[in-house]
Amino acid sequence: MTRTEGAKVWLIPDGYLPVPPVDSKPYQSHEAICILNTGSQEAHIRLDIYFEDDEPIKDIPIFVGGERTLHVRLDWPEHLNGVRLPVGVPYAIRVRSDVPIIVQHSRLDTSQVNLALMTTIAHPLA
Amino acid sequence: MTRTEGAKVWLIPDGYLPVPPVDSKPYQSHEAICILNTGSQEAHIRLDIYFEDDEPIKDIPIFVGGERTLHVRLDWPEHLNGVRLPVGVPYAIRVRSDVPIIVQHSRLDTSQVNLALMTTIAHPLA
Amino acid sequence: MTRTEGAKVWLIPDGYLPVPPVDSKPYQSHEAICILNTGSQEAHIRLDIYFEDDEPIKDIPIFVGGERTLHVRLDWPEHLNGVRLPVGVPYAIRVRSDVPIIVQHSRLDTSQVNLALMTTIAHPLA
Amino acid sequence: MTRTEGAKVWLIPDGYLPVPPVDSKPYQSHEAICILNTGSQEAHIRLDIYFEDDEPIKDIPIFVGGERTLHVRLDWPEHLNGVRLPVGVPYAIRVRSDVPIIVQHSRLDTSQVNLALMTTIAHPLA
Repeated sequence: MTRTEGAKVWLIPDGYLPVPPVDSKPYQSHEAICILNTGSQEAHIRLDIYFEDDEPIKDIPIFVGGERTLHVRLDWPEHLNGVRLPVGVPYAIRVRSDVPIIVQHSRLDTSQVNLALMTTIAHPLA
Repeated sequence: MTRTEGAKVWLIPDGYLPVPPVDSKPYQSHEAICILNTGSQEAHIRLDIYFEDDEPIKDIPIFVGGERTLHVRLDWPEHLNGVRLPVGVPYAIRVRSDVPIIVQHSRLDTSQVNLALMTTIAHPLA
Repeated sequence: MTRTEGAKVWLIPDGYLPVPPVDSKPYQSHEAICILNTGSQEAHIRLDIYFEDDEPIKDIPIFVGGERTLHVRLDWPEHLNGVRLPVGVPYAIRVRSDVPIIVQHSRLDTSQVNLALMTTIAHPLA
Repeated sequence: MTRTEGAKVWLIPDGYLPVPPVDSKPYQSHEAICILNTGSQEAHIRLDIYFEDDEPIKDIPIFVGGERTLHVRLDWPEHLNGVRLPVGVPYAIRVRSDVPIIVQHSRLDTSQVNLALMTTIAHPLA
């Protein structure tokens, strides 16, 4: 019932944090990496962030308890061990874990008056 | 023609029911788990809901007849054997079935004036 | 270069045609099944439509030429051999082909003032 | 740490560039193919574009450096070796690479007042 499920490496090519608008809003544009750990053991996870013209930022640590989910906000340095990702710049993400997990990536864009949403299960390494 | 297709376990990391707005609207924010059972036998399904800081809610029963689909509303306790999921809180979902099925997850967000949509096929266990 | 790629059976659990609004608009709500046939041979395809409380509609014929794509409008009976799918009702779709193809499903919803989009690659049978 | 990950062929059936609106806007409708190359070697990639009633356009060259991402704008001929894709016409995409990569496809539609988003990981050849 608590056997571990998923894969240890997941890839997300389309990362992008919209430029925050000047006016304040009830909803902020953001991206989230949603992680599910159905196993009983805590998952020790590392994020690697890839760019178009720069060296990758590697080994950002994330922890997800056994039988827990974590929705990591990519626009919040406090979720990324203090790393602040640039806005308005394409990037891509690799998620590595010591135990199998499941990873989904979503973006909420409020650049204009109404919000837009997109999501996909990340690509697991077989 | 009626052989059973799909997988018996499906995972969805990004669950979130938007906080209902105060004003009434023709469309309510919601999430749905859409299940397809192409086999001839009824599928006996259990939903497990995972949270960030709480123990999971396990074994919510769902039934889908042979050669039928079911679109389960996650904001309707009557679809979840009376379980009311919290709003404004990240969660994740595991779907387990006794026969192979196919699972897709969609969110309709009407937090603002216009609706937004997102969808993905859930992650099947190989 | 023209070897055939993909799978012969694809599944889409979340089908739904929004109820058309009364006022006319430049964009109509619709769903599309987008098929890619990278092989050199014409694909002979059958669609099966599943419902929550009714028997499935099976064997709607579709043809896609070699090295061609086809974006099948699910709200157009002329794309479905004359079959008119009901609006405002959940359904699900199975796509079967005699040669491997690739299938993606998208919905454009214009129920409110602005459009919303969702898409996912369908679930292939391994 | 820099082993190559992903697949060498990826397929995207639902390509469509919305017709640009007459009025100028801060956001242009577009589609992007987002590529992640986690290996250390440059990826030599070819795009093939399939249509409903025309012969495919094949072998558009793309290059992505080792440990880099590239978000290819499909509405920018300068990203497609000078090829200008037609607007308002369904198409589909095949991505071929000499080393394994990961591919995601997204559309931003600003046909109406507010933007809409959709995304999916492309279909990898196993």
